[in-house]
Amino acid sequence: MNDELKKYPQEALRDFSMRVFQYFAVPEKDASIAAAVLSLSDLRGIDSHGVARLHTYFDMLSMKRINPRPNVKIIRERKSICTVDGDNGLGLVVGPAANDIAMDKASQFGSGWVSVCNTNHYGIASYYSLEALKRDMIGWSMTTSTKLVAPLWGAERMLGTNPISIAFPGLKNLPIVIDLATSAAAYGKIEIAKRKGKPVPKGWILDQHGEMSTNPDDMINGGALLPLGSERELGGHKGYALSAMVDILSAVLSGANWGPFAPPFALRQEVPKRSVGKGIGHFFGAMEIEGFMDVTEFKKRIDEWIEVFRNTKPVKDQPAVLIPGDPEHTEEAIRRKEGIPLIQPVIDDLKDISKQTGIPFPD
Amino acid sequence: MNDELKKYPQEALRDFSMRVFQYFAVPEKDASIAAAVLSLSDLRGIDSHGVARLHTYFDMLSMKRINPRPNVKIIRERKSICTVDGDNGLGLVVGPAANDIAMDKASQFGSGWVSVCNTNHYGIASYYSLEALKRDMIGWSMTTSTKLVAPLWGAERMLGTNPISIAFPGLKNLPIVIDLATSAAAYGKIEIAKRKGKPVPKGWILDQHGEMSTNPDDMINGGALLPLGSERELGGHKGYALSAMVDILSAVLSGANWGPFAPPFALRQEVPKRSVGKGIGHFFGAMEIEGFMDVTEFKKRIDEWIEVFRNTKPVKDQPAVLIPGDPEHTEEAIRRKEGIPLIQPVIDDLKDISKQTGIPFPD
Repeated sequence: MNDELKKYPQEALRDFSMRVFQYFAVPEKDASIAAAVLSLSDLRGIDSHGVARLHTYFDMLSMKRINPRPNVKIIRERKSICTVDGDNGLGLVVGPAANDIAMDKASQFGSGWVSVCNTNHYGIASYYSLEALKRDMIGWSMTTSTKLVAPLWGAERMLGTNPISIAFPGLKNLPIVIDLATSAAAYGKIEIAKRKGKPVPKGWILDQHGEMSTNPDDMINGGALLPLGSERELGGHKGYALSAMVDILSAVLSGANWGPFAPPFALRQEVPKRSVGKGIGHFFGAMEIEGFMDVTEFKKRIDEWIEVFRNTKPVKDQPAVLIPGDPEHTEEAIRRKEGIPLIQPVIDDLKDISKQTGIPFPD
Repeated sequence: MNDELKKYPQEALRDFSMRVFQYFAVPEKDASIAAAVLSLSDLRGIDSHGVARLHTYFDMLSMKRINPRPNVKIIRERKSICTVDGDNGLGLVVGPAANDIAMDKASQFGSGWVSVCNTNHYGIASYYSLEALKRDMIGWSMTTSTKLVAPLWGAERMLGTNPISIAFPGLKNLPIVIDLATSAAAYGKIEIAKRKGKPVPKGWILDQHGEMSTNPDDMINGGALLPLGSERELGGHKGYALSAMVDILSAVLSGANWGPFAPPFALRQEVPKRSVGKGIGHFFGAMEIEGFMDVTEFKKRIDEWIEVFRNTKPVKDQPAVLIPGDPEHTEEAIRRKEGIPLIQPVIDDLKDISKQTGIPFPD
């Protein structure tokens, strides 16, 4: 399908994003990092979180809902742990700054743990865990987001899709990169099914009355996503519990708006009537591998883990067992060579930004 | 169903377990802690992990497969993080000792993180996260276990049911206690279905060829459990990734036997042909709440979280939304009053231990 789409060099898209952030007086270094987060998402094939979201950031900055020059600061601290206030900056700026604090603490204390309030959507969770690998650390990243998911046995949206990411480095092999939403399926998949006029699998969504449905409209019109595990019998309580863990570490612990009170990411989304804190929340962790085991030894053990799991006896008529991160590594190799394929609505969005700002969009 | 079963006061079972451990020259303090871990499991209604397992520990100690007097020590360390060698002790002794190290580090550095090798099965994961609450910390606990679970698209057992636990304290409310196996269903549920001659839901198990099955015998005779999410469409890759995370943090990072190489818990289980480290692995974390937020303020926020989630609009004909830990809190309140109900095979096992050791079993 990608072959039919127009492709753009990642450098050109990254440069465009950076200039858009700078248009709103985001400082050069921050704009560069924010553009890098979006770019990595596009490179790794997570299309929903890359430049496809630039118009939303553009809207929020235009409406002055986001502070372009935040003073990201530690508001409470005890050695390896702290709480950071993101000063309502772009999540793409606050996230990397808070993740740096976690890694700096890990350099000093072996590990660093940062709960963040007063922030906004931070892009893909694995950007942060991949950064930690550059410093021979194991990095952990979680975030809350606008409510979309029902807790098990609930008939309304109460939690975000609350992702968890962690990554482990190999020596000869590319890293194991875990990055998963704690919902059964991503919201983007419901939208795709709707566009195609197709039903979704049972176990993804509820309608507005809390009944299981396979009609994507039922979810979009006031229904909810189901947590990972879907129903009680298949472990829906576990997906709900993991989502709760992310919500509490990121938002209850930092003083952000938790659960259903998380402010919306986009203008079209409803603003919760109540506020129980500041902005949304993230949680970052970093641990120095060297404090547990010689780094090279650890990477060799990861290499062996990867090779053993790749050689699992496969299920008939299914692909071989994958290692978490494999699909994204494959996509990244292709896209670095061939460019980022964009669908027409995204191209239209970017051209609209170009028109409004005068920043040329590569044709 | 519990009403038909014979019930035993938890103190009597705890005392019996303690004396059994002491029979093998486990030091008094260690025997007391090990018995406490089993007892908490029975109290919280997690019957599979309480005295029902005492005969297995008894067997392993009898065969000298487990060291009754381990020298649990830190073998590598950097401030808030370390690796602990459990000296092949009982997991019920090594686990609490390593968890204490994590909490002591948290007192000193704000957080503490301990990866453990050369250990054995440690009981319920939530014993450890509940201990952290006593010190106003957020505690994390994970462990590997004997292989039972197939990675997505794999047709053989490669991972344990690898649980994750974390707990958060309320002020007026009982704590939120998350404790979940990363498999779709527990092995115990397959055994129960077999005993009753009933099929299991689709999504729990594979047969020995990797085909989905609903016949419990298919899993027991060389098949495998499925990870949380069950199949690709419902997020089976996510359950596999979470299980991989537990495996790597607990066993790759500590130098233990990871994945399919984890040594068996019971004598009847097959010993892996290869060893890639020492024993099985655990991972513990502890973070001081006070370093992030005033403890009372945090507990009040958790209280509100609990109340808001309990009041989620419920699905028709389903119970109200529960808070993670609710079923176990309810069970604990009943069992503290009424005693621990035991099924006849467990009573027979305990009587057999009594016969072999001369330690009187309460009748």
